[in-house]
Amino acid sequence: MTLKTNFAAGTCRLPFEALQNLLKRIFLAAGASEHVANILSANCAGCERDGALSHGIFRMPGYVSSIRSGWVDPAAVPVLETGGSGFLRVDARNGFTQVALDFAAQSLKERARQEGIALLSIRNSHHFSALWPDVVPFAEERLLAIAMVNSFACTAPFDAKVPVFGTNPVAFAAPCDGMVPMVVDMATSAIANGDVQIAAREGFSLPPGLGIDRSGKPTVDPHAVLDGGALLTFGGYKGSAISMLVEVMSAALTGGKFSYEVDWSDYPGAQTPHTGQLVILIDPDVGRNAQFSRRVRHLVERLRLAKVSRLPGDRRLVTRERSMREGVCLQKSDLERMELLAQQRWAST
Amino acid sequence: MTLKTNFAAGTCRLPFEALQNLLKRIFLAAGASEHVANILSANCAGCERDGALSHGIFRMPGYVSSIRSGWVDPAAVPVLETGGSGFLRVDARNGFTQVALDFAAQSLKERARQEGIALLSIRNSHHFSALWPDVVPFAEERLLAIAMVNSFACTAPFDAKVPVFGTNPVAFAAPCDGMVPMVVDMATSAIANGDVQIAAREGFSLPPGLGIDRSGKPTVDPHAVLDGGALLTFGGYKGSAISMLVEVMSAALTGGKFSYEVDWSDYPGAQTPHTGQLVILIDPDVGRNAQFSRRVRHLVERLRLAKVSRLPGDRRLVTRERSMREGVCLQKSDLERMELLAQQRWAST
Repeated sequence: MTLKTNFAAGTCRLPFEALQNLLKRIFLAAGASEHVANILSANCAGCERDGALSHGIFRMPGYVSSIRSGWVDPAAVPVLETGGSGFLRVDARNGFTQVALDFAAQSLKERARQEGIALLSIRNSHHFSALWPDVVPFAEERLLAIAMVNSFACTAPFDAKVPVFGTNPVAFAAPCDGMVPMVVDMATSAIANGDVQIAAREGFSLPPGLGIDRSGKPTVDPHAVLDGGALLTFGGYKGSAISMLVEVMSAALTGGKFSYEVDWSDYPGAQTPHTGQLVILIDPDVGRNAQFSRRVRHLVERLRLAKVSRLPGDRRLVTRERSMREGVCLQKSDLERMELLAQQRWAST
Repeated sequence: MTLKTNFAAGTCRLPFEALQNLLKRIFLAAGASEHVANILSANCAGCERDGALSHGIFRMPGYVSSIRSGWVDPAAVPVLETGGSGFLRVDARNGFTQVALDFAAQSLKERARQEGIALLSIRNSHHFSALWPDVVPFAEERLLAIAMVNSFACTAPFDAKVPVFGTNPVAFAAPCDGMVPMVVDMATSAIANGDVQIAAREGFSLPPGLGIDRSGKPTVDPHAVLDGGALLTFGGYKGSAISMLVEVMSAALTGGKFSYEVDWSDYPGAQTPHTGQLVILIDPDVGRNAQFSRRVRHLVERLRLAKVSRLPGDRRLVTRERSMREGVCLQKSDLERMELLAQQRWAST
């Protein structure tokens, strides 16, 4: 394991593969099957590699405590059911959403290429990561992908003072001729829950306008938001409407739980939301619009010309390239925490 | 024609059918075919009836001048092409989008019911109305509908100082057991362009934070926004990302024009954006999730319980009921303007 250390900053750089292997060992030690550990370690290490820190190794203790609590099954084998030829349904069997998506991805792509559009509904599933890793691989195969996932009640609808929605992210990715895909991944809450947790841990205040406390008053204290308060939705009533759409698509349509129905009170340590996920794939070529990816590129170039300082995903790409060249940047203390987790010998349950 | 007048307020109330007939006469006088006049008059009168004033009779002079300029063909007959069995493509032949949607709706519903999901891409089309009338009828037939349409460059992407996007609305409608459908229709600009036009006409200032002037500086003057300035997107960079998605889905995917490609400079009087529209229909029953509409109702009831002051569409519904009971409320001066438009004898072109 090559490890570059910067003692001054307390950081080091670890090759991506080494980080992924370390995380895989943690998942295995916690009780995950080899298959599940492979998928989740690649996903989590990828988030850390791209600088998506609220979904990187920061999440590992939560994965482990959720698995150890018995709340999520880290060896679940998903079951595929089909409705119409464009409508796939997966029961994740109380396992992780990424495993269910991996399981159904090939069928979903075949349906999209045949019918022009196909839908995957995943229910009885746990999503604890960023959403862009779920859509980018499809765009790399010339497909347009949209994904939505609900989570647990932590976000107040516009004009309400109690949480009902999850952070309810929406992501999409589109092929872009000769360039990396156009990628968007955004919580419909004003801030990601993971970022509030990081702020609480690090002792930072939140920017104003993102959260309320348990009495419904605006607050910049991340602890007050996490302790019975709520995040707000982004963009006022419009963001709230999109968050509502995510509940409809990820829960009502899939047969999963609404965010406000997630009840982990009998599973101390559980952190992974047990809900549903929706993925829609479109094959632009089936619409005989072969120039789709060139048109997406045209739009990207027009936006650069309009001097937008950056497009969604730009920062991830820069961080990824540096991580692959120089290793993934980690706090030394975090790395030590990960190594302890990997060495943990859990009592068998 | 029964007409109730309130002289004090300068308003009157006209039965819905009478308003629709009046608008139909205007479309016919301007040169629309009987079929197109039926569809557009029902649409426009419906917006006025529901209090969606920026898309009601306020739009009629713009419809007429666009038609008279030769920019849009008010007698166009759309052409249907199919890709995969879930992907319908319509060339609107430079006509109105609503006519193309009406033309393809039956096929689209059949595909959705068979495949579980189906997509309609409309190109070479003009959309000058609200988007909710395009999705509500599907939800009334137990389907989940999503629609997006781009328009003309009037909205600056986040962090840019020039318009690139249109107002780019997104709408969705979902069946809700025993209740009217759940309906959302929202511009991804911070304010609808029609509302800026109304503010300019009536001499109102805009709320702060919605627009910039031609030099890129924030302004509350609607004239400065319309005269070389731009609207902002709602919700900062996240709303901007959704507006970008609308360009991708409504233009790149359909083969329509991007908002920034609309060039009506050779057609003085033209106001109807000539772009594309995307509609996605999902049949929840095909996913063997027969309780979908009951689940949507559950969500709506949970939101009421959380004391949201109103849900999207609530206000339209209240206004609609009163309009149907007492007649559609109009300014007398507006009604006179409409009657003049209907009596106009245009020189043949």
